[in-house]
Amino acid sequence: MPDRPSYTPTPDDRFTFGLWTVGWQGVDPFGTATRPALDPVESVEHLASLGAYGVTFHDDDLFPFGASDTEREAAVKRFRDALDRTGLKVPMATTNLFTHPVFKDGAFTANDRDVRRYALRKTLRNIDLAVALGATTYVAWGGREGAESGAAKDVRTALDRMKEAFDLLGDYVTEQGYDLRFAIEPKPNEPRGDILLPTIGHALAFIERLERPELVGVNPETGHEQMAGLNFPHGIAQAIWAGKLFHIDLNGQSGIKYDQDFRFGAGDLRQAFWLVDLLETAGYQGPRHFDFKPVRTDGFDGVWESAGNCMRNYLVLKERSAAFRADPEVCEALRASRLDDLARPTAEDGLAALLADPTAYEDFDVTAAAERSMAFERLDQLALDHLLGVR
Amino acid sequence: MPDRPSYTPTPDDRFTFGLWTVGWQGVDPFGTATRPALDPVESVEHLASLGAYGVTFHDDDLFPFGASDTEREAAVKRFRDALDRTGLKVPMATTNLFTHPVFKDGAFTANDRDVRRYALRKTLRNIDLAVALGATTYVAWGGREGAESGAAKDVRTALDRMKEAFDLLGDYVTEQGYDLRFAIEPKPNEPRGDILLPTIGHALAFIERLERPELVGVNPETGHEQMAGLNFPHGIAQAIWAGKLFHIDLNGQSGIKYDQDFRFGAGDLRQAFWLVDLLETAGYQGPRHFDFKPVRTDGFDGVWESAGNCMRNYLVLKERSAAFRADPEVCEALRASRLDDLARPTAEDGLAALLADPTAYEDFDVTAAAERSMAFERLDQLALDHLLGVR
Amino acid sequence: MPDRPSYTPTPDDRFTFGLWTVGWQGVDPFGTATRPALDPVESVEHLASLGAYGVTFHDDDLFPFGASDTEREAAVKRFRDALDRTGLKVPMATTNLFTHPVFKDGAFTANDRDVRRYALRKTLRNIDLAVALGATTYVAWGGREGAESGAAKDVRTALDRMKEAFDLLGDYVTEQGYDLRFAIEPKPNEPRGDILLPTIGHALAFIERLERPELVGVNPETGHEQMAGLNFPHGIAQAIWAGKLFHIDLNGQSGIKYDQDFRFGAGDLRQAFWLVDLLETAGYQGPRHFDFKPVRTDGFDGVWESAGNCMRNYLVLKERSAAFRADPEVCEALRASRLDDLARPTAEDGLAALLADPTAYEDFDVTAAAERSMAFERLDQLALDHLLGVR
Amino acid sequence: MPDRPSYTPTPDDRFTFGLWTVGWQGVDPFGTATRPALDPVESVEHLASLGAYGVTFHDDDLFPFGASDTEREAAVKRFRDALDRTGLKVPMATTNLFTHPVFKDGAFTANDRDVRRYALRKTLRNIDLAVALGATTYVAWGGREGAESGAAKDVRTALDRMKEAFDLLGDYVTEQGYDLRFAIEPKPNEPRGDILLPTIGHALAFIERLERPELVGVNPETGHEQMAGLNFPHGIAQAIWAGKLFHIDLNGQSGIKYDQDFRFGAGDLRQAFWLVDLLETAGYQGPRHFDFKPVRTDGFDGVWESAGNCMRNYLVLKERSAAFRADPEVCEALRASRLDDLARPTAEDGLAALLADPTAYEDFDVTAAAERSMAFERLDQLALDHLLGVR
Repeated sequence: MPDRPSYTPTPDDRFTFGLWTVGWQGVDPFGTATRPALDPVESVEHLASLGAYGVTFHDDDLFPFGASDTEREAAVKRFRDALDRTGLKVPMATTNLFTHPVFKDGAFTANDRDVRRYALRKTLRNIDLAVALGATTYVAWGGREGAESGAAKDVRTALDRMKEAFDLLGDYVTEQGYDLRFAIEPKPNEPRGDILLPTIGHALAFIERLERPELVGVNPETGHEQMAGLNFPHGIAQAIWAGKLFHIDLNGQSGIKYDQDFRFGAGDLRQAFWLVDLLETAGYQGPRHFDFKPVRTDGFDGVWESAGNCMRNYLVLKERSAAFRADPEVCEALRASRLDDLARPTAEDGLAALLADPTAYEDFDVTAAAERSMAFERLDQLALDHLLGVR
Repeated sequence: MPDRPSYTPTPDDRFTFGLWTVGWQGVDPFGTATRPALDPVESVEHLASLGAYGVTFHDDDLFPFGASDTEREAAVKRFRDALDRTGLKVPMATTNLFTHPVFKDGAFTANDRDVRRYALRKTLRNIDLAVALGATTYVAWGGREGAESGAAKDVRTALDRMKEAFDLLGDYVTEQGYDLRFAIEPKPNEPRGDILLPTIGHALAFIERLERPELVGVNPETGHEQMAGLNFPHGIAQAIWAGKLFHIDLNGQSGIKYDQDFRFGAGDLRQAFWLVDLLETAGYQGPRHFDFKPVRTDGFDGVWESAGNCMRNYLVLKERSAAFRADPEVCEALRASRLDDLARPTAEDGLAALLADPTAYEDFDVTAAAERSMAFERLDQLALDHLLGVR
Repeated sequence: MPDRPSYTPTPDDRFTFGLWTVGWQGVDPFGTATRPALDPVESVEHLASLGAYGVTFHDDDLFPFGASDTEREAAVKRFRDALDRTGLKVPMATTNLFTHPVFKDGAFTANDRDVRRYALRKTLRNIDLAVALGATTYVAWGGREGAESGAAKDVRTALDRMKEAFDLLGDYVTEQGYDLRFAIEPKPNEPRGDILLPTIGHALAFIERLERPELVGVNPETGHEQMAGLNFPHGIAQAIWAGKLFHIDLNGQSGIKYDQDFRFGAGDLRQAFWLVDLLETAGYQGPRHFDFKPVRTDGFDGVWESAGNCMRNYLVLKERSAAFRADPEVCEALRASRLDDLARPTAEDGLAALLADPTAYEDFDVTAAAERSMAFERLDQLALDHLLGVR
Repeated sequence: MPDRPSYTPTPDDRFTFGLWTVGWQGVDPFGTATRPALDPVESVEHLASLGAYGVTFHDDDLFPFGASDTEREAAVKRFRDALDRTGLKVPMATTNLFTHPVFKDGAFTANDRDVRRYALRKTLRNIDLAVALGATTYVAWGGREGAESGAAKDVRTALDRMKEAFDLLGDYVTEQGYDLRFAIEPKPNEPRGDILLPTIGHALAFIERLERPELVGVNPETGHEQMAGLNFPHGIAQAIWAGKLFHIDLNGQSGIKYDQDFRFGAGDLRQAFWLVDLLETAGYQGPRHFDFKPVRTDGFDGVWESAGNCMRNYLVLKERSAAFRADPEVCEALRASRLDDLARPTAEDGLAALLADPTAYEDFDVTAAAERSMAFERLDQLALDHLLGVR
């Protein structure tokens, strides 16, 4: 049957991709590259042709680490030209603070002060470029801010350094008058044995101790939370609740293991459904950013198909979520499970009234209340039926 | 050889136990009780004889759920007499909001409003008792605040209800003039498929959105963080950094699986060492509270031995940590790994100076910096040697 | 829209349920029962009305532990009458060797010899009943055969005892002339810290050392393998390859955590799809047995709906698998990924020919071979499209 | 204090190292090399000076992939000279079937038949060299024999190919008259999403279906089993019980996550103790082979220290295990936990006698038996005390 048009992405869907995703050459801990390097210009053009809205980049994705100013400018110009030609946006950029061995002990929290200073300067430099290219979000993944052994990193001191770094970055964008916010990307481990700010929660908590917390939010990545066995939609919901979902990285992961970065839709499909349901119902306005790695077994056929499939799968799940929410039986099942009652304040009448209300405690029929079915089974099967398209 | 006196606990060590720990009868998902119920008075007396400082309790540990006022008062009087007789303190108390089926969908975030009101009233009632018995910390473990399926709980709404509950509790202790602070205990899952506020980080972040954040901190449990594969000392360090380590639950866990609640020292011994090292060097002043379950294969011999061993193992690790920190070779190794450099601000000279400093970027010898060994191997082996007692 | 008839189960689908599944009362490590006990006769009748093929049981599901002969016979008679009335079969039975505290250290490998002897006698007694009720498979889940600490169980000795037990059971059914085979059910942990024969692989390997290996196979449970992070369809495939898939337990599990026993279809939906695809294409003839726990938040509404949904979800996935396998584009994609080449022997011409073939090594164009795309992305998206019903 | 001499390794301790361990340059999924390549000759000399017994290698560790015969012979000669000079042995060798992109879909089970043939030829060629250098064990780690998606690999067919490969290898060594046995190294995942033969159990089971099972055993790696959350000493014990522990890889891993390959002693220290206790008491005669990666934060100082520490930690644990087993209180505690009773056959009198024995069932006092304490707590604390050196 012909593919339904709703699964064909357009820029209005706000799908974005990192240059490093389609450009991943397949180096892993036990193997060398299986694909040649990809010219960023080709990535821009191909992603545009697939219906993407934008691209994102690390500095080192655009020009080699240590590039001269001339090389850098030439690379930026070619990239900018491709953006202009295709209409692709750059809503986000980030810094590579992990590939070069100088970052082997981290960047903002490296034990070596000169490495920390270098990391900050490298970041500041790329912020200028990010803003020049139109980015309004700057992601910070501190993948090497961590340790393999207990004495190697004094965590409290390291958090002082991390705070210092984000405070400085906040000073900088404020002084420059940039319209740019930061989004911290948590990850529990890999490549370090344990990474600082390992989950959405730890990052959200950290942000509250910054000088300018309003400038900093989170950029959760599907797979990273799943590497800690956490429910990803729950974590995202807490980030939204805290007003801090500044950006999001979508991909796929099959449980607690190495960072797999599968395309969106691979891995835990039911959590992917609930994630899309959350983003679409909670009014998230930012890009739907895919941070995945095309499987290294495949050639460029697989690269471009997987990029397209990330978007397709999102659109299928979006359609299914909409149908689920619109289904009268679902609405009834939500009521049967008392989701409407959850939305009522517990004690809108205040503490004194609660204390004075004998129906709340003295006269409360605990046994009868315990016997009420929550009716969750029916509700969850309705969701599964919608996901599978059998309703 | 005779046991060294330093491993024999005294009340000065501030070791405390929940009544529910030594009192655990061994019911698990696949088996019924292997030990008879233990009279709280016997627990108090036995723990005192072992050198503990205090005991803690859920309301339902002292008197049965639904006890009449007379039963309740009699039970409290017997308990208080035992405390007076033995000198044991009650530094902390908590509410059982999970055993009775009325809490099957949670308490502060149950979908049913009347259950939420009941849970709050049950908590408020036990707070009065906690304060009357001298407690200054009130722990809140929301073990059933969660869900098994995606639509069963609207997480953002549930967090509204959770906030409402803690705001009300804060109002109450403020109005009553109680010297009592709350400590939220995170857990990722079990008994619910996913629990809200699953890690230390999520709880710390949540607290910042309360009306009285200063009244609320965390009560991390060793095993709960390990159930998410997280480095426990790292999480505790972030809680201390945030000024929020109000209490701590010590036990043992062997990796990501069901909640094992082994005695302290079982499970991951090296993380236990780093945890004690952290608590003892960071100036944590609160109780060292053991929240464990004596293995159900054993009789009361195992119950009391395991309680004693929790304390013994803490004291052994404390001795080893002190020796590690005092060892001149360790001090030298810490310098060789540049922990002193981590303690230096990165840019105490400010942003402008950093930007103007060519040694920070333009003239920085990246290659030379990358070649410096961090010397972490030597440092970690010194720690292991101290832990094993071979230095 | 009206439900398609293919999702309505009939006895021909060979769906079976344990009495303990719908009969689970909701006791968990932190809570007491939320549902009353269910009469086995009611379970039989209700399951029959839903379209099930059969029921299975532990001895203690039918009559209480320690029941007198009279009680036992009465219970069996009522059960048998219900079977006769409904036409439900009993293709499998098993022994409860874990609930009573006498089994706290295991059964066939308990350190206490008298407990081991008692466990064997309890098993032998129930085997007679199983055969009398028509069962041809006898499942052995050694849930308490394990340990929480290193010296508590000498594993090699315990395996000797385990072998002795299965050898005796094999002797018994042989001597009695019973048409009954055994199926060992592996599980990595819970309720013991670590359980012997923790995965399908360990059980398969163990069986090969028995006196009558032909009498013993495996009964893998979806969730148990996932508790070790293993790919469940892969494990089942190896069991089939070894000729040892004697029975199967279907349910749902969300990753590495406590044993969740969700209904089939919950948890990892994509692995559930591949599992059904495997069972249906590999010619597995045994029952599709559901070993799940209806969520304890629900009343009996949820119990019977979840039982029905286990079957419905299986049938949906079976339909999707059939469509996937019949799709010409899938056939083409399988060829593009060279699954047909995998089916060719590597060296059907023998070792000497392989060694003499220069195209195999000396003249093999490694670079060209490395550049071939495996085209796995396209194949996997076709599978996902079929699962989601968008083709 | 002076280091006790027993912790200084000698060749009699049979410690061996892979060339790829100390030679690891620190490439990880997010970073490039932090250390230069190490000349195999230097590795041999340095390891000899540290007290090692032998070295092991992949073909590609000694000479580059695709090396000409001349290059290959020169490299082998230099290596052999270093061995002769230092007295180091080569008890084991293995093939690199994972680094080059030609193996991106595996080797013995690659979908492409020509890749499978090439992999076999590469293996056969290196077997000749292994034997020439004196190896008696040939390890096979099938790290890329697996898949990321469900249809990409037909597991039963892949196991046919795997069997074919090992049968051919068995033919070869038999025909050549080589004194060489194979040891399969299981791993659950990484670099593939799921790897075939994921645990010790799966490998043991597979071996039983080979034409020459007597030629094939396992080479378990500490960290690989822990990546599946499994108890490593339990798995090794089953391998020994099956007569199949042909070799062993020792290292450290901190729970379920990416493959960490820490030095032996890092990670789970208590399991490391029980592992050494098992190897030393079970009469394992093979090499103690370390397969670890020196942390990439360190220079060569860390490389050689970590190699030395692997051996030192083994010797410390060996000493502690010996003291534990020799301690009269431990012997008493083992009896109190009835380990002696576990060693007695359950029914040495046979099935008929068991059935006829009323004390086994009819007259068995279940309640009294259930009340006996297993006394495991005391036993485990004695072990911990010995590990910590506080007895």
